[in-house]
Amino acid sequence: MINGAFAEVVARVQPVSESAAEAARLHHTRLTKPLGSLGRLEDLGIQLSAIARVCPPPVPEHVTIGVFAGDHGVVASGVTPWPSEVTAQMVANFCAGGAAINVLARQVGATVRIIDVGVATPIPGDLSNLHQRNVAKGTANLAHEPAMTREQVTAALNVGAEIANESIAEGARLLVTGDMGIGNTTPSAALIAVFTSTSPSLVTGRGTGIDDATLRLKASVIDAAIARLAPDAAPLDIVAELGGLEIVAIAGFIVAGAAAGVPVMIDGVISVAGALLATALAPDVRGYLVGGHRSSEPGASIGMAHLGLSPLLDLELRLGEGTGATLAIPLVQSAARVLAEMATFESAGVTERDGAPE
Amino acid sequence: MINGAFAEVVARVQPVSESAAEAARLHHTRLTKPLGSLGRLEDLGIQLSAIARVCPPPVPEHVTIGVFAGDHGVVASGVTPWPSEVTAQMVANFCAGGAAINVLARQVGATVRIIDVGVATPIPGDLSNLHQRNVAKGTANLAHEPAMTREQVTAALNVGAEIANESIAEGARLLVTGDMGIGNTTPSAALIAVFTSTSPSLVTGRGTGIDDATLRLKASVIDAAIARLAPDAAPLDIVAELGGLEIVAIAGFIVAGAAAGVPVMIDGVISVAGALLATALAPDVRGYLVGGHRSSEPGASIGMAHLGLSPLLDLELRLGEGTGATLAIPLVQSAARVLAEMATFESAGVTERDGAPE
Repeated sequence: MINGAFAEVVARVQPVSESAAEAARLHHTRLTKPLGSLGRLEDLGIQLSAIARVCPPPVPEHVTIGVFAGDHGVVASGVTPWPSEVTAQMVANFCAGGAAINVLARQVGATVRIIDVGVATPIPGDLSNLHQRNVAKGTANLAHEPAMTREQVTAALNVGAEIANESIAEGARLLVTGDMGIGNTTPSAALIAVFTSTSPSLVTGRGTGIDDATLRLKASVIDAAIARLAPDAAPLDIVAELGGLEIVAIAGFIVAGAAAGVPVMIDGVISVAGALLATALAPDVRGYLVGGHRSSEPGASIGMAHLGLSPLLDLELRLGEGTGATLAIPLVQSAARVLAEMATFESAGVTERDGAPE
Repeated sequence: MINGAFAEVVARVQPVSESAAEAARLHHTRLTKPLGSLGRLEDLGIQLSAIARVCPPPVPEHVTIGVFAGDHGVVASGVTPWPSEVTAQMVANFCAGGAAINVLARQVGATVRIIDVGVATPIPGDLSNLHQRNVAKGTANLAHEPAMTREQVTAALNVGAEIANESIAEGARLLVTGDMGIGNTTPSAALIAVFTSTSPSLVTGRGTGIDDATLRLKASVIDAAIARLAPDAAPLDIVAELGGLEIVAIAGFIVAGAAAGVPVMIDGVISVAGALLATALAPDVRGYLVGGHRSSEPGASIGMAHLGLSPLLDLELRLGEGTGATLAIPLVQSAARVLAEMATFESAGVTERDGAPE
């Protein structure tokens, strides 16, 4: 069905290892702490073991954040107060290191890869840090017509998979999804509505800050686009109809990470839409996903719940770029490190509790 | 009233700077992100500016976690399944670098200071990493008598203040509170009940994992101890009656951090009890406190709310040692770094939104 990097990785995704998860559960009982006292960090360590197929799992020191940028024809319908040019301007800001994602990545020592997969307007400034993989100069307006062709979908999936493959070849052992695209909460909400079978009015949020009238307009645009879908539409048909290029690339990035046995931490509502597409195309991807943060966009929470993910952070962020998930990177590293480095009751000579069952 | 390091620092605590907070609020409007889109990270940056009295605030690269250890006579009443000897054994584990707090501190590059302020039994192993400031070999049993003398309270406050002063002299610009003490959720719950005027049954939790009968016993012990307090008991009388040594030392540590203009991030229920004592002794300390995580102990949430703190993390931890707050260290650093390093709309040449009010 699809040629290229994506077809190769999607065929390689395996379920995570339940036996490695069980080994991690057992190892947690031996470490010098009351059983379960590290809470969700213990669950995360178990998942990382399942993904790595070994306990303890490697501590992912090298982390790459893929920030996929694309534009959206639906901006012409007035769904956001920001002009499309801001996408290109923000990509330039990423390349210059001045955006939130750059600052937060520096704090945790992560690498930011900036990918133009669908920016519509010229990107100003020095582009030496930019991965130029432009598939199209933005999507068509989903208010009136299919956002993308099937060829564009395939190309964007390949871009995402290639970027993940390159990152992993360079040493990345944790991938983080990020996005930039003025207007991209609109296709994301549409995709989340379809993939979770939820009413668009429930998943549509205020994005970067819109008023009530714009919110109603946004929901009606999404309703109209979804109404065009055939009842039996396949995942790639759905995403071709609704967009967008960076969302599809994120799905490719996620699948390639899972195929390589690397955990993929997802960010907010755009990444959630990408993750829903990824799991629709390869259900075993689910075990490799970590929820980074709870975006304040309603669709993000609905999509996360559908994926069975409980985000690590809930700090009321709604910026995108991968910022929320990037803040959670040290939590993932810590979860692995606990299993790798903590002393056991036996090795440390610490008396266990009275032996009563927990 | 008190001689020594604590008396010196408590007289020096000043309110945080509202003008620096205002400067940070304004600066956030200029940075290349939709207003408010970094959520609670923005509020945290504003607080860090208020504490540092300047915007941007310094990024606290050097962080010290003070892990104060002490024993509790109330263990003899059967409030926990763990023997008191485990306190000393875990202190040895801290000194050897094998405990959860060591592992989590390594992940974020923080320094762990381990302080024996009240351990009852001999600490095995190499103690070269231990700060030996033992005030007493554990507290008396609060079920039957005052846990501490007023002299012990003064000495423990001084230990905490001295450790903070030493840490700051060595370069620490963020302090994190931690604890170790078998039985210490009992005095902590008692202190939280008194300082927040809450029924002991509501603040008493299962600590490291106790059954229903032990939970009822624990609550009744706390009731009896609180019943001995004079209606007009001063904070230092209350803590002398209820204990414990490491909780009092944490209060001294917090006050000294605030006196030096350094943010202090508090951990779980033991740290919350220490923070309530600190703010009872010096109300302006409140502005310097950051809530690290929401412990699953009920008293922690009640105490945090009383302090007006909303914890950064909620990962169902209930270990103590400072582990929850240590996980949140990169969030504090990130909040400062955003104000210090992000580009402005003007500097990055990014178009602002349509100018409509948010």
